[in-house]
Amino acid sequence: METSIAETSVVELIESKKHKELKERVANLNSIDLAEEFESLNREQQVVLFRSLPKDAAADVFAHLPAETKENLIEFLTDPELAHIVNDLFLDDAVDFIEEMPANVVKRVLKNASEDTRKQINQLLQYHEDSAGSIMTTEYVDLKEEMTVKEAFARIRRVGMDKETIYTCYVVDNKRVLDGVVTVRTLLLADASDRVGDVMETNVLYAATGDDRERVVELFRKYDLIAMPVVDTEKHLVGIITVDDVMEVMKEENTEDFYKMAAMMPSDDSYLASGVFELAKKRIFWLLVLMVSATFTGGIITRYERLLAVFPTLIAAIPMLMDTGGNAGAQSSTLIIRGMAVGELGISDWLPIFWKELRVSSLVGAILGVLNVGYKWILSGDPRLALTIGCSLFATIVLAKIIGCMLPLLARALRFDPALMAAPIVTTIVDAGGLVVYFRVAEALMRL
Amino acid sequence: METSIAETSVVELIESKKHKELKERVANLNSIDLAEEFESLNREQQVVLFRSLPKDAAADVFAHLPAETKENLIEFLTDPELAHIVNDLFLDDAVDFIEEMPANVVKRVLKNASEDTRKQINQLLQYHEDSAGSIMTTEYVDLKEEMTVKEAFARIRRVGMDKETIYTCYVVDNKRVLDGVVTVRTLLLADASDRVGDVMETNVLYAATGDDRERVVELFRKYDLIAMPVVDTEKHLVGIITVDDVMEVMKEENTEDFYKMAAMMPSDDSYLASGVFELAKKRIFWLLVLMVSATFTGGIITRYERLLAVFPTLIAAIPMLMDTGGNAGAQSSTLIIRGMAVGELGISDWLPIFWKELRVSSLVGAILGVLNVGYKWILSGDPRLALTIGCSLFATIVLAKIIGCMLPLLARALRFDPALMAAPIVTTIVDAGGLVVYFRVAEALMRL
Repeated sequence: METSIAETSVVELIESKKHKELKERVANLNSIDLAEEFESLNREQQVVLFRSLPKDAAADVFAHLPAETKENLIEFLTDPELAHIVNDLFLDDAVDFIEEMPANVVKRVLKNASEDTRKQINQLLQYHEDSAGSIMTTEYVDLKEEMTVKEAFARIRRVGMDKETIYTCYVVDNKRVLDGVVTVRTLLLADASDRVGDVMETNVLYAATGDDRERVVELFRKYDLIAMPVVDTEKHLVGIITVDDVMEVMKEENTEDFYKMAAMMPSDDSYLASGVFELAKKRIFWLLVLMVSATFTGGIITRYERLLAVFPTLIAAIPMLMDTGGNAGAQSSTLIIRGMAVGELGISDWLPIFWKELRVSSLVGAILGVLNVGYKWILSGDPRLALTIGCSLFATIVLAKIIGCMLPLLARALRFDPALMAAPIVTTIVDAGGLVVYFRVAEALMRL
Repeated sequence: METSIAETSVVELIESKKHKELKERVANLNSIDLAEEFESLNREQQVVLFRSLPKDAAADVFAHLPAETKENLIEFLTDPELAHIVNDLFLDDAVDFIEEMPANVVKRVLKNASEDTRKQINQLLQYHEDSAGSIMTTEYVDLKEEMTVKEAFARIRRVGMDKETIYTCYVVDNKRVLDGVVTVRTLLLADASDRVGDVMETNVLYAATGDDRERVVELFRKYDLIAMPVVDTEKHLVGIITVDDVMEVMKEENTEDFYKMAAMMPSDDSYLASGVFELAKKRIFWLLVLMVSATFTGGIITRYERLLAVFPTLIAAIPMLMDTGGNAGAQSSTLIIRGMAVGELGISDWLPIFWKELRVSSLVGAILGVLNVGYKWILSGDPRLALTIGCSLFATIVLAKIIGCMLPLLARALRFDPALMAAPIVTTIVDAGGLVVYFRVAEALMRL
């Protein structure tokens, strides 16, 4: 019997109205896999599946559903059902959920939340979306210094069920000022009669609610944390951040950087779920800006039209110079942007970066330049043309790498996002600079 | 007194030979901050600081030092000192360390390791560097089904000190086959007399030693894990992977993708620590390949030299067409590469991707094309030139986005890394295609 249930798909169980089997089936699945089952169902089937979930799992499954499915379900749920879910969600999930919903749904959700939940949700909603406060939850285990280890365990057992993590507990005084942290590991290895205040760690890493969430990611990575307290300006404990949310932030921040570095506006929506207009909107702004800039590069060519009319063979090298310059610049800017994003490089490193890129670019430029001189000489039989191309390539690569490494640092210094100073912009600037160099060198060498 | 110590830097304490104050000072710092202190010291000072570390902290600090510092220290350490460190390191850190060292150092390290440690290190060294086996540790708490919760806690207390995580325990049978997992949270909420077999979770997520580590990252993110068991082909438990190592892998994999997408060979070394030749070597290969490819693009221009001689105004639009095509292609390839990296897109999505990019590119291409026709017409007073440029831009953007989205999918289908099919290669291909389109359109329209 067990096997036959396992072989029937969830959608088949819903269609054939086998409610008992359906309940048995879903009881064996974890919330994340259950949430995935919703994807292949229609609206009515989603409601049937949701109502067949065990009561204590419903909120957790709900938290993992896509926004669209959540909105659909809410429409069908009764007020008491909705109240149960909202009050049962972890607060950070509740806040994410509310941020995804349209205003009329939010109103209904908040109306059904308990007063306590509503108050806490409203507080969390105030934090800026890139701040530590926006990714924290207010559900943690707090202890007092004067408790014994035994009393601490009793408290963990009593309140722990609904907390996002119990493995790090936070010790606060009567005014909720953070005094220290103590891990369950420490408590397990201590004597039952030890005082929490004596075994806790007082040298605590914490974030302020307004801290940048990227900084939080750095601290988690550097110190191998699984949770971190968040305090307000008077060091009152207001929440904690857990490692699962930090991994999500890491993914989001990286995706954002990938998008920005490819001249797109960042987006949280999945590709397949995004509409054509939405995708086009995210892409057209930078394409337009860069197109206009590239038009100026075209203007440079127009200025040297007479030179090109006399030496038409110069034109053929333009794509190679532009592409190689762009690629060389993109390499340097990517290295510096990534180095800053993971905290390995900073503005203060500008001099060693400059010096290193100058040497690397000279070496790379010299090798590629010499190769080009030889190749073009053999191919065209014109040593002056070959020398012009080789020298210009060398100069373009050095220029590209210097611009490529300095622009992101300059952006950071001016408090812009360095990720915007990536391949597309660097390429556009280097193209213009490289062509000017090329035509100047050509004028000097070809007219000898 | 306390304050004055805190105000004196570690290097000053070493220089003034205040060994007692130095020991007090380092006792208050955590391992990661201590490891950072080594950066500003010379070789002799590093040895002094290392010897002043508390015995139980030495291995942990050592694990966080850069490879260069480790090598320097080992040279100065006695065999017993070295033995202490190697045996005290977490096994995954020991393996990382051995992989960083030159052969002669490795020999000395392994000679000083205990037989048990040596055997385990050698086993871990066998796993491929991108596999789940390479990031696991063999230090975990194992329990038996027939234990009571009370006995389980006794075992955790007894063996837990040296384990990387105790919060998830692994239940194995007599042949070490993985039967289930049980968290400390579950154990805390259970009765002391409950059997472990009755409270454990049997629906366990696990990885095989040979699984790709990127898949492991995906599972941790999806299921919010803090640890995961690793089994061999017969489902024997051989190790666990913890979330701190997964975050490190996430960072490394992302950095690798950034590098590859900017036409550089990936590198684990930090930018500032890398030599000029090493950096140049990582960059020159792709620059050379792309340069040669771009030379073919130049060949296309040569073939249309007569057309350009008659209509020299065509030349000025070349940079704009090349850049915009490259940028449009880079946007699409970045979206698809990133989508595949985070598991949102796969080869099977090729048709919806193709269809979506076709519509997005037509929309974006039409808008930018029309803008260009208007702008060029006003500027040049030549409607045929304006129309040529506008139509070519439209065709180039559609071509760029289709190539940009299909190449990464093709790479995945052929089992290449999609990240290699990023901006640089897409740009080079689109440049050639775009120019051919441009000249064909020009021939057709300009000679009307």
